[in-house]
Amino acid sequence: MRATTLHDVRDIRFTDVPDPVLSEPTDAVVRVVAGCVCGSDLWSYRGENGPIEQPRTIGHECLGEVVEVGASVRDFAAGDLVVVPFDHCDGTCPHCLAGMQSACVNYGLTVSGQGEYARVTQADGTLVRSEAIADAALLPSLLTLSDVMPTGWHAAVSGQVRPGGTVVVIGDGAVGLCGVLAASAMGAERIIAMSRHADRQALATEFGATHIVAERGEEGIAAVMELTGGVGADATLECVGTDQAMKTAFELARPGSMVGFVGVPHGIELPVRRMFQKNVGLHGGVAPVRKYVPELLELVTSGRINPGLVFDKVLPMDQSAEAYRLMDERQAIKVMLTPVG
Amino acid sequence: MRATTLHDVRDIRFTDVPDPVLSEPTDAVVRVVAGCVCGSDLWSYRGENGPIEQPRTIGHECLGEVVEVGASVRDFAAGDLVVVPFDHCDGTCPHCLAGMQSACVNYGLTVSGQGEYARVTQADGTLVRSEAIADAALLPSLLTLSDVMPTGWHAAVSGQVRPGGTVVVIGDGAVGLCGVLAASAMGAERIIAMSRHADRQALATEFGATHIVAERGEEGIAAVMELTGGVGADATLECVGTDQAMKTAFELARPGSMVGFVGVPHGIELPVRRMFQKNVGLHGGVAPVRKYVPELLELVTSGRINPGLVFDKVLPMDQSAEAYRLMDERQAIKVMLTPVG
Repeated sequence: MRATTLHDVRDIRFTDVPDPVLSEPTDAVVRVVAGCVCGSDLWSYRGENGPIEQPRTIGHECLGEVVEVGASVRDFAAGDLVVVPFDHCDGTCPHCLAGMQSACVNYGLTVSGQGEYARVTQADGTLVRSEAIADAALLPSLLTLSDVMPTGWHAAVSGQVRPGGTVVVIGDGAVGLCGVLAASAMGAERIIAMSRHADRQALATEFGATHIVAERGEEGIAAVMELTGGVGADATLECVGTDQAMKTAFELARPGSMVGFVGVPHGIELPVRRMFQKNVGLHGGVAPVRKYVPELLELVTSGRINPGLVFDKVLPMDQSAEAYRLMDERQAIKVMLTPVG
Repeated sequence: MRATTLHDVRDIRFTDVPDPVLSEPTDAVVRVVAGCVCGSDLWSYRGENGPIEQPRTIGHECLGEVVEVGASVRDFAAGDLVVVPFDHCDGTCPHCLAGMQSACVNYGLTVSGQGEYARVTQADGTLVRSEAIADAALLPSLLTLSDVMPTGWHAAVSGQVRPGGTVVVIGDGAVGLCGVLAASAMGAERIIAMSRHADRQALATEFGATHIVAERGEEGIAAVMELTGGVGADATLECVGTDQAMKTAFELARPGSMVGFVGVPHGIELPVRRMFQKNVGLHGGVAPVRKYVPELLELVTSGRINPGLVFDKVLPMDQSAEAYRLMDERQAIKVMLTPVG
C-alpha cells in the first residue's frame, strides 16, 4: 500500500510500504476512509521527539471500513464502517473496566492512519461501528472521534468542568478548540479561550467560548484574572504541553481547582510548591478514547456538536507533506486527508 | 507569657515572650488548654526551612479558651472553649465560600500554639466552639482537629478515596496515620499502610489498616503491586513530602487515579511524563482545616473516630524541647503539650 512516512526532520513522503497484516487473531485491518494530522505528529515532524533513525509510517487518527479480521474477532466483519480510536484496548483488563483504556495491558496504537490501510490491534475492544460514516456531512466530525475530540473532552473531564463554572482553555490548536466545545457541551457558563489567531478565535466562539484573551504571559494572566474577579478559573484546560502553557495554567487555576492536561509534556517542570500552597491539582494524560466515543458519537449524530469544523483544509493523502507544512506553519488548524482518487 | 521558641537548629526553649494582643478587631486571644508538635515543625527544627535568623515562637496546633475578642467579633466571647484551626480564615471570601479556606484572602496562622496564649486572626471565620473540650477523654482527639486529623482527611479527600476502594498510605507519621483513619471512616475496603515501626504499625491497624507493608523502595512497591494484583491503588495518600515518597506514590497509583498529598514538599521533582502516560493525577496541599472540623467534631464526639491516639506522649509545655527531641528521633509519634503547673 501507500502511506505517509516520516523520513527525517520535516521530510514527509507518501510512499510504498508493506501492507498491514493480521499479526494476531485479535487484529483487524481497516481501509482508511479518512485520516488526519495530529498536533502531536508535529513534535516528531520537527525532530523534537528525538532523532529519526529510519523511515516509518506516521498517523494515528483515522476511520474507515473493516476489510479483514483475525480469527478471534467476534464483533466486527469486513464491510463494517468504524471509528478507530488511536489507542487500542482490549476492553476487558482491569484498566479498561475502570474506564482507563489508555492504560490497557494490551495497549496498541494506530501507526498508518495517514495511509491506505491501518492495522487495529484488539479490534473488539477498540473499534466503534457507525453507519453515519457513510454520511459525508458527518464524516469530518466522526473522524475527530479517533483522537482530537475525545482528547479535548478528556481535558475537560480531567479538569473537572462543571455546569455553571468558569473554564479557561490554554491552547488554540484543534485539541484546545475541542476542549472549548467539550466545556460548552458540559454546561460551563463562561469559557475563556486564550488565542491569538483570528480564525481560531472565530472557531472558539462558534464552539462556545464566551471570552477571548489574545494576550500571552503576564498580560494574558492579568486579563483572565480580571475577568474572574481575581479568583481564577474553576477549571483550567492545558492543551499545549509546554512549560510556559503549564505555568500559565497554574497561575489561572483558582485555589482548590484542577488543571486538566492533554498536551504531551515537553520540557515541563511542575511548580509543586505552588500546587501545594494553592491546592491546585493536575490530572490528565493520554485520553482513553474508547471510553468517550459512544457518548460523543451520540452528540455528533444528533447534531449537538460539530467538532469536524476543526478541519479547515482537506487534501488527498498523497499531499500529506503539504498538510504537515500547513499545520507546522499554522496556516491550517487541522488537515483532513482523503484517499487518493 | 511563656511560649515555646525556636532559637537555632535543634535549639528549642520555653521562654518569656510578649503576650499576644488584639491587633485587629477580628482577632481573638485564646488561652491554650493543649498544644502539640507537628511533623512540619520538625523541618524548621532541623534547619531544613532555611536559616533561623532570630528567635521566634513556634507551634500552630492548639485548642483552648477564648479570653478576649476584638470589637467586630460577634460569634465568640471570653470563656468559650474552642478548637483553633491552624489556618485562619474569614469564612466569607470566594475561596472560603468554595471550601478552600486555606487560600483565604485574609489568611493567617497560629504562631504560639505551644505557648500560654495564641492570637487567632479572623476569629469568627476560624474558631469552632465545643464544650466537649472540657471532657479530658475527648481532649486529645479534639486537639487533633486543629491540624493533623483534618490534614489526613484532606489527603483522603484529595486522593479521592471511595467506599470499597483500595488505598495506600505512604508515611506513618501522625498525618499518615490520620490518613489511614480517614480512609477507614470513608469506607475504603483495603487500606495498605507503609510503615516500618512496630508501634506505628499497631496504631495503623487500630485505625483501620488492613495490610502493613514494611518494605521501602522497590521492595515496598513490589509488595503493594502484589497485594493489588498488579493494578495499583485506587487512591494513594502521600503524607511525607519527600521526593522518594512522591515517586513511590506515582509507582503505586493505578492508572486514572489520584495521589492526594499533604506533606509540605521538600526537594520534590514531579514525574510529569509518568503522570501523563498513566493518567495519575496529583491534588492536595495545605488543608482547609475549618472546612472539615464540623464533620470531624461529630465523628469524634460520637466516638466513631479516636484520632487522639496519635499522642503517645504528654508533656508539660516547659518540656517542649524534650517533645521535639522525641519526635525528631522518632521515639514518639506525636507529643501533646499541656499548660505548666
